[in-house]
Amino acid sequence: MPLPSRIDAAVTRAIRSAQGGTAPRALADALHYATNPGGARIRPTILLSVAQACGDDQPELSDAAAAALELIHCASLVHDDLPCFDDANTRRGKPSVHRAYSEPLAVLTGDSLIILAFETLARAAVQNPDRAVELLLTLSRRTGMPDGICAGQGWESERVVDLAAYHRSKTGALFIAATQMGAVAAGQEAEPWYELGARIGEAFQVADDLRDALCDAQTLGKPPGQDDLHGRPNAVTELGVEGAIERLKNILGGTIASIPSCRGEAQLAHMVRSYAERLTPVTPARHRA
Amino acid sequence: MPLPSRIDAAVTRAIRSAQGGTAPRALADALHYATNPGGARIRPTILLSVAQACGDDQPELSDAAAAALELIHCASLVHDDLPCFDDANTRRGKPSVHRAYSEPLAVLTGDSLIILAFETLARAAVQNPDRAVELLLTLSRRTGMPDGICAGQGWESERVVDLAAYHRSKTGALFIAATQMGAVAAGQEAEPWYELGARIGEAFQVADDLRDALCDAQTLGKPPGQDDLHGRPNAVTELGVEGAIERLKNILGGTIASIPSCRGEAQLAHMVRSYAERLTPVTPARHRA
Repeated sequence: MPLPSRIDAAVTRAIRSAQGGTAPRALADALHYATNPGGARIRPTILLSVAQACGDDQPELSDAAAAALELIHCASLVHDDLPCFDDANTRRGKPSVHRAYSEPLAVLTGDSLIILAFETLARAAVQNPDRAVELLLTLSRRTGMPDGICAGQGWESERVVDLAAYHRSKTGALFIAATQMGAVAAGQEAEPWYELGARIGEAFQVADDLRDALCDAQTLGKPPGQDDLHGRPNAVTELGVEGAIERLKNILGGTIASIPSCRGEAQLAHMVRSYAERLTPVTPARHRA
Repeated sequence: MPLPSRIDAAVTRAIRSAQGGTAPRALADALHYATNPGGARIRPTILLSVAQACGDDQPELSDAAAAALELIHCASLVHDDLPCFDDANTRRGKPSVHRAYSEPLAVLTGDSLIILAFETLARAAVQNPDRAVELLLTLSRRTGMPDGICAGQGWESERVVDLAAYHRSKTGALFIAATQMGAVAAGQEAEPWYELGARIGEAFQVADDLRDALCDAQTLGKPPGQDDLHGRPNAVTELGVEGAIERLKNILGGTIASIPSCRGEAQLAHMVRSYAERLTPVTPARHRA
């Protein structure tokens, strides 16, 4: 099965399990709304690509890991869009969850998706308890405090920001989770996969800063210029457009070199290259010298 | 070690683990603020009492379960107090988390505590993976959708409310988690412990409705009359004060009978009786006929 179909099927299975029984209707609907249609599903795609490169000997466990990671990512988008954070009216080209359903339901949607992510991994433990527990530990570490995406958001409330910690947790964390969980689901050690995830995360952050600075709302599917608006650290503000593109190219160059030795190494390098091409923006006319 | 000390030590260990490394300071502080000083810690106390009644052969696992349950309960209080829900300025006699720290940090505190709860259980899996996975499944089921406290809050956004499902998930869920997780931590089946948890939850809900109707803000440590204000179903509105007290006594009478056979049955019955006495309010003069 192609990766996008595997991911969609796994996310759908998880969401349906949360909608059963006597679930309150609007919240049940909001769980689907917040996760469909998906964005690029880039994190679970990386996760499954790494799992395949490592042999993917327990595909049901890899699918559960991919779904759990995507659910956490979607939860973070729902909470980040809330009025007290970005106050975003749109996400992926449609109204954000709090605009479509209400603010209380958006808070509950995020909470429910976080819980569902861990429940999905716990259910997968019947296949392999040891790997499932390792997946739970990896996902919780990269999601919560002091190293996960919650910590990343928390840095935005600090007067003095540790920039390295901020970027590593805000954007890097779920990419590190992606490469490490892919390896763990296929029975490999997590540690050698840290650097690849961290580098992909760094590239993604700079590419996101570039898109935020260069694109209009329609292309983005969300309001542009959010980083400037909220005074958040941003590679374009720091280096200018050309400087940020240069930095992105440098990061991507090192990324392929950081792929650990594994049987699917060549195919994984191919995937990273194809993402790199998609990530690197062509400078629009108004920003050219 | 007495139960309150075991619970405080376990919660403190969990919170400290989330404050380490390069954690952003304010969010790290808010995690402590949201969990200390604790309230009655009634859910983890029930959990450990059941574990002891079942032999408590792996006390470190029981402690992790108690901490995880209390973290989830504290997370739910932080999110319930948010402006979009109860908009409560105080909790446990001090400013609510969003008043003390900010609304973004309150959202992140709740999220981080939820994640920390599951991380705490996953870490405890080194002691006994099978029991830890069962604990993870029980906690996630009673916290998320469709049966957990998220579902309970979700019902408050519905026009037509399934009252049985509402009460079972809103208040019952974490008491069911308490009795079942206590049993599972000590190596027993979860299912026989469902009814005891459900009955304690029901009693607690009616007692809470009575306190909400009868007490002032200082005694409650939070604003009174919240159910009336938010149009939520309430036993006092439905049955009057005397009727609600009568129902509470009836529920408590059946609770002791529902304790499953176990070696510490007598001691557990004693604990339930002592909670029952504390829960049953003396009708204040202004409400007497």
